[in-house]
Amino acid sequence: MLLFGNQALLTDLYQLTMAEGYWREGIGDARTCFYMHFRELPFNGGYAIACGMSHLAEYVRDFAFTGSDIDYLASIKVQKGEKLFSTEFLHTLKDMRLKVDIHALSEGTLVFAQEPLVRVSGPVTHCQLLETALLNIVNFETLIATKAARICEAAKGPVAEFGLRRAQGPAGGLFASRAAYVGGCASTSNVLAGKHFDIPVSGTHAHSWVMAFKSELEAFRAYARSFPQNCTLLVDTYDVISGINNAITVAHEMSARGESLAAIRIDSGDLAWLSKRARQMLDDAGLPDVKIVASNDLDEFAINSLIHEQESAIDCWGVGTRLATGDRQPSLGGVYKMCAQWESALGSWIPKLKVSEQVKKATLPGYLNFRRYHDAHGMIAGDMVYDECHLPTEHRIVDPFDDLRQKDLNGMAFEEMLKPLVINGKPVNNLASAKDARLNTIANLARLDATNKRLMNPHVYPVGLSFELRDCRDDLIRTYKGL
Amino acid sequence: MLLFGNQALLTDLYQLTMAEGYWREGIGDARTCFYMHFRELPFNGGYAIACGMSHLAEYVRDFAFTGSDIDYLASIKVQKGEKLFSTEFLHTLKDMRLKVDIHALSEGTLVFAQEPLVRVSGPVTHCQLLETALLNIVNFETLIATKAARICEAAKGPVAEFGLRRAQGPAGGLFASRAAYVGGCASTSNVLAGKHFDIPVSGTHAHSWVMAFKSELEAFRAYARSFPQNCTLLVDTYDVISGINNAITVAHEMSARGESLAAIRIDSGDLAWLSKRARQMLDDAGLPDVKIVASNDLDEFAINSLIHEQESAIDCWGVGTRLATGDRQPSLGGVYKMCAQWESALGSWIPKLKVSEQVKKATLPGYLNFRRYHDAHGMIAGDMVYDECHLPTEHRIVDPFDDLRQKDLNGMAFEEMLKPLVINGKPVNNLASAKDARLNTIANLARLDATNKRLMNPHVYPVGLSFELRDCRDDLIRTYKGL
Repeated sequence: MLLFGNQALLTDLYQLTMAEGYWREGIGDARTCFYMHFRELPFNGGYAIACGMSHLAEYVRDFAFTGSDIDYLASIKVQKGEKLFSTEFLHTLKDMRLKVDIHALSEGTLVFAQEPLVRVSGPVTHCQLLETALLNIVNFETLIATKAARICEAAKGPVAEFGLRRAQGPAGGLFASRAAYVGGCASTSNVLAGKHFDIPVSGTHAHSWVMAFKSELEAFRAYARSFPQNCTLLVDTYDVISGINNAITVAHEMSARGESLAAIRIDSGDLAWLSKRARQMLDDAGLPDVKIVASNDLDEFAINSLIHEQESAIDCWGVGTRLATGDRQPSLGGVYKMCAQWESALGSWIPKLKVSEQVKKATLPGYLNFRRYHDAHGMIAGDMVYDECHLPTEHRIVDPFDDLRQKDLNGMAFEEMLKPLVINGKPVNNLASAKDARLNTIANLARLDATNKRLMNPHVYPVGLSFELRDCRDDLIRTYKGL
Repeated sequence: MLLFGNQALLTDLYQLTMAEGYWREGIGDARTCFYMHFRELPFNGGYAIACGMSHLAEYVRDFAFTGSDIDYLASIKVQKGEKLFSTEFLHTLKDMRLKVDIHALSEGTLVFAQEPLVRVSGPVTHCQLLETALLNIVNFETLIATKAARICEAAKGPVAEFGLRRAQGPAGGLFASRAAYVGGCASTSNVLAGKHFDIPVSGTHAHSWVMAFKSELEAFRAYARSFPQNCTLLVDTYDVISGINNAITVAHEMSARGESLAAIRIDSGDLAWLSKRARQMLDDAGLPDVKIVASNDLDEFAINSLIHEQESAIDCWGVGTRLATGDRQPSLGGVYKMCAQWESALGSWIPKLKVSEQVKKATLPGYLNFRRYHDAHGMIAGDMVYDECHLPTEHRIVDPFDDLRQKDLNGMAFEEMLKPLVINGKPVNNLASAKDARLNTIANLARLDATNKRLMNPHVYPVGLSFELRDCRDDLIRTYKGL
């Protein structure tokens, strides 16, 4: 991926100081396992859509410190003017590649709170140097794929994403466009994303097009001359009703030439009222096939209301700012925590956890994975997080925070969810394309019950621990708390 | 700037279709003027800090379509399989440079709603092809610089930014770190931003460092061995109180070696209660110079409450997610609208505007600039937006939406706010460094009255139009509305 080949410095300074510390202590190669998870679903929703894994794999593949990176690190001084990093340590970074194994969800897979989205194992230094970029990539792309899925579920009809102008920086826009497509959008306005990720691109014209001509009617005629096969006219530069009348005039002129106006777009005002009025005017003019595109600060809630409460006459939706920035919750709180250390003497992984004041914030210990169970109709019925080194003996899950909440999954088919993504620093061969990931999203959502997809107060999908994992976690907490 | 040299495709598709349309109509070179402004201040605040101008100038400098960009554009098909763009038009993109002039605010300058932050003039096609990237860059960086300024104003003490892991994509993180520094932060954890923008970098260690050792005490000792001149210990991996006790043990061992522990960091739990408890424990242990760093979902409101309502004992602040994503409002709604067309026959700019259902959403017409007036104490007193082609005859402003709200600025000194940034496609020589811009922010905020800086319900700073501009706008609206 051209924009971010080799960006080893895309990390927090403390990853590098810890790396030097591990190296000084002689434990930099200690084989360690980390996992990424989040504690709460974004947007108070009922699900999330995993995304960012292809980008992550490419980041690992291309990871390297350049000579100028090393020179920069050598120049960093601490308060008293001494160098922060030793020359000997910096020398170890020179030809370093990230020799990690990564197991992760496939892009487009449903994921819920407490579940491992990504598991990384390898030398502790390598795991640590990957942390910041991994979180940056997977947090953001999962957030936007999830937002897009919510918007597309609400819209029913096609959603075009055009958030680039308000996205958080150039790559915010680029990866938001990909994630929005993975989440279900039909197209993007972002040409760079179209090029790099093979995503359909779409667009209409701006108010400035209309302002560049002597009159709106002249501007519409000129646009129809230039793009007769793909003509959508924006009708609200001066006055929506006269804009619609001008569009109707041009539509009739096009018909006379054997062409047809594809759509009009409304980008301001009351979209419900205006779209119904526009539909009536177009129908009365004998133009029932001209579609109505709406845009302007839309999100899943506005779209849901326009469809269900206001019976608007909108056929296609253009969604920008609120999609590309994950409005209402612009970050997914994913964290990356150590969960196991390899003990060569025993030849096995030793589970580790971080406790905290509340059990709710304790992490899960072990070489983690999870299973997803399906009912007889193919709908998903419950997920079990477990430690691969202590396989579950029962098909039964227990809520991580409520011992009395359990679910029996006996007799159901299941699959293991974490799949190899990177082995010894090399991405697997079949990295998902955006198109594959989008189809995976659609297939995944079809298997999730409608009550879990509600915008407000969704039913909570059952995610639990194996009994073995629950016991292991509780024993470790008791040890650390001295209980 | 290495990450985004040449990204002409970082644009919405419709800019390119409009460009082909202008070219077909023979008006692609028509000299036109656009301006960027926003209608409402972000975060319900009283001011914004302009940022992104250096990045914008570099984007324009490096703008070019590559051969592979042109090949991609040639491959885009419309519904019936025909090519969207003509070969002849694509040929005109081959050696195209953006021959625009840009006048803009200096980075770090206070800016308010309705004011032009950036004014672009040049061939309409060039102005149009720049729109999306310009908005992307200036919207985001201005948003984050503003958020940072609010947080730094609340914190009084130094603020370290460490939002990269939750930022919106890699460049979201990179440019957020620069903008946060411009807004007043003391340092960033983002090493890539440190390298590229010459920003101080800082950091401590993570929970994983503690988990990588047999015990927390051993981990603290190891960290102190590796980084004695710059040692901050994170005390909440297992239990904060025993963490503080372990830090005290290590601090005493360091003292015995003639070193000193710089600080402890608390990253969870009740920061007010824990920081006071920690201060007491450190003081009782004879360690009054060990500072307390706090982090964990902080923003300007949390910091303000910790300082003023809870008398916490926090010396330094680490702020991540909510800063780097502009939490509570993850986008600035800046727009870029045509404001004038050059009329060669007359040898002057003809004002243009976009009306809308509401006057509030109408844009301003003319070759726009604005003046900032200062009172006798050097405090800023009011801004006047005007058309450079119709210079104001009075030092008096009128509210854009309320004719009866006027302010007399007679006898005050003023400055013209838009400065040359790019002339004929070439950046001016003295592009602001992040350090210069940060000093500009600090100087600007010192000249703004405290009531305008309040977090809640700030006093509205006076921004008005010249009478000439108000009249011109109203005449145009009357014409378009047929009044």
